[in-house]
Amino acid sequence: MKFVIQRDQLIASVQDVMKAISPRTAIPILTGMKIEAHTHGITLTGSDSDISIESYIPVEEDGNVYIEQLEPGSIVLHARYFPDIVRKLPEKTVEFEVDHLHQVTIKSGRAEFKLNGQDAEEYPLLPKLQTDDSFEVPIDLLKNMIKQTVFAVSTMETRPILTGVNVNLKEKGLNFTATDSHRLASRAVPIDTNLEFSNIVIPGKSLNELNRILDDAEETVEVSVTENQILFRTKHINFLSRLLDGNYPETSRLIPTQSKTIIQAKTKDLIQAIDRASLLAREERNNVVKLTTESNNFLEISSNSPEVGHVSEEVSVHKIEGEELKISFSSKYMLDALKVIESEDIIIEFTGAMRPFIIQPVNGENILQLILPVRTY
Amino acid sequence: MKFVIQRDQLIASVQDVMKAISPRTAIPILTGMKIEAHTHGITLTGSDSDISIESYIPVEEDGNVYIEQLEPGSIVLHARYFPDIVRKLPEKTVEFEVDHLHQVTIKSGRAEFKLNGQDAEEYPLLPKLQTDDSFEVPIDLLKNMIKQTVFAVSTMETRPILTGVNVNLKEKGLNFTATDSHRLASRAVPIDTNLEFSNIVIPGKSLNELNRILDDAEETVEVSVTENQILFRTKHINFLSRLLDGNYPETSRLIPTQSKTIIQAKTKDLIQAIDRASLLAREERNNVVKLTTESNNFLEISSNSPEVGHVSEEVSVHKIEGEELKISFSSKYMLDALKVIESEDIIIEFTGAMRPFIIQPVNGENILQLILPVRTY
Repeated sequence: MKFVIQRDQLIASVQDVMKAISPRTAIPILTGMKIEAHTHGITLTGSDSDISIESYIPVEEDGNVYIEQLEPGSIVLHARYFPDIVRKLPEKTVEFEVDHLHQVTIKSGRAEFKLNGQDAEEYPLLPKLQTDDSFEVPIDLLKNMIKQTVFAVSTMETRPILTGVNVNLKEKGLNFTATDSHRLASRAVPIDTNLEFSNIVIPGKSLNELNRILDDAEETVEVSVTENQILFRTKHINFLSRLLDGNYPETSRLIPTQSKTIIQAKTKDLIQAIDRASLLAREERNNVVKLTTESNNFLEISSNSPEVGHVSEEVSVHKIEGEELKISFSSKYMLDALKVIESEDIIIEFTGAMRPFIIQPVNGENILQLILPVRTY
Repeated sequence: MKFVIQRDQLIASVQDVMKAISPRTAIPILTGMKIEAHTHGITLTGSDSDISIESYIPVEEDGNVYIEQLEPGSIVLHARYFPDIVRKLPEKTVEFEVDHLHQVTIKSGRAEFKLNGQDAEEYPLLPKLQTDDSFEVPIDLLKNMIKQTVFAVSTMETRPILTGVNVNLKEKGLNFTATDSHRLASRAVPIDTNLEFSNIVIPGKSLNELNRILDDAEETVEVSVTENQILFRTKHINFLSRLLDGNYPETSRLIPTQSKTIIQAKTKDLIQAIDRASLLAREERNNVVKLTTESNNFLEISSNSPEVGHVSEEVSVHKIEGEELKISFSSKYMLDALKVIESEDIIIEFTGAMRPFIIQPVNGENILQLILPVRTY
């Protein structure tokens, strides 16, 4: 196995694949990165057995030659050293050669590394997806859907199914829902496909890594789903994640269908006032702030911490309709929800101080954020 | 006590003073920040009893009005909340008012914080420096002297005196020396003063904080020294540090006066090659690299880690004079020393593989870095 490769291409691929590699893994060889040279390019593979990432560098693309002097073969290199070595090589090209004892020689300029590799035959075979069905999503849209829901997954292992995002595809509508049972976040978008599936739950961790790896420069990602795996495929990357076992709870009945108080406000004004009010309460786990409706389209946002002090702020809003309201909630949950709504204005609908309330953008996007209030008496 | 102040000025001062405040301190009130309003301005004070920082904001400066409606008084506020509050206030001005129960009201726009303060009478009086003798140093020069020496102080409390930088002023020469007994760093500069002192040892931690707080925009810092304290004074800041007790060891006899091998090289080339060679050895505490002289003005920099592999690189240097040499040393010590020498080219003088070697810039600056080699047989 041998090749001469452009260092920048190799660095980018190594960085992507590293996102799947964990130094703590039950299968020692998975702390390594598999490198395969085929006739048409190089494939790097990393996996922690939950997530697997393959990155492909073609010999040539758009008239640019990335790889020369290619002789096929494969090797596994320890991922603890390889990325830093590649990043710090002195020249723009890197010569990579493997001998029959799995010793890898990496040369660039006058620098020469000889690393002990491992036989690629010992690297586990990644499961192949048993489906040709797939649909396409614009990358920026998928990244938004992830960002707007994944923060609400549970971090507790007591109900493992809630650590994932529930994904449904029905009647040309793709829907993401996450809840940790104190709050819920969902987003729906139209998709041009006849595929349908339900009760697919993707681990939140996988979606966070996917969001980090997806390149805004590419336009769409192709998605294939089987019973226990999901594959996201772009031009250069295959991102495979296992799915969570179990039944995702029915969440639609949690969402109130009527409201008693409706507030329409500037998203940014509310974020800043709640952020300030949360400053005094940050030591407590659910740093609670209180929202009180006032006359003349003003809200009061306030918080009290007996030891530290008191904070209050009047916020001017577009309108307040319905009953007067005093309600307390976690400032963290509220800020998480408000920050992912990319709309200048929002509507909040309340059904009393003890009932969950919902936040939606006024820009027409199908986003719903639900938060359970906190009892403070 | 009352004043209305420009928020940006207050933020900058609070940030400076925070550098002296530690959340872990034996004296509880020192977790707070003292705020004093005098007729001509506001003074903020923070201290961890080793370092004390005072920052002064004048009512008016260079035609800019920073403070209005000033009524004198003083208060201590908990430093855990105050900086974030100031930073996140909505408007450009901040109204600050203290009542007779030590309750502090901070208003900005429609946001209002009421914080529980503490009586400033309970804040310890900072020691006053008993000297009028002082000398001036350009700030950029002082920052360089600190940067070029302080990294070499010991981090071990076994010999506390070595955790500080030894400062001498003699015959119009100011000299900084630091050593952890494995390496030594020193820098000397001429100073226009008739003051003289010796055996002054400033804690490394104090100098690191001083370096962070000194503002490049100001030109000089005024330095006053007594037996147990040193004061650095700029237009807006008083930085007071205690000195370390004890006698600093005589270090001049450690420095070899003759050499057997002399290498002159480009600083950057050597840094990059040693940095690469250290990649494989970083798990061991003293990640050791080996330097070997070769013919035709080449060095070999190499490192070996039985489990991971081997790295070697030839570095072209300006010249090699004297005996052939194979020497091993800590790549960390070598990189620390090379990185603070702001000279394009350096001279390294060796007196054999088992003796300390010295590194000096060729730009004429009075910097000396000394490193003890590592036995590798």
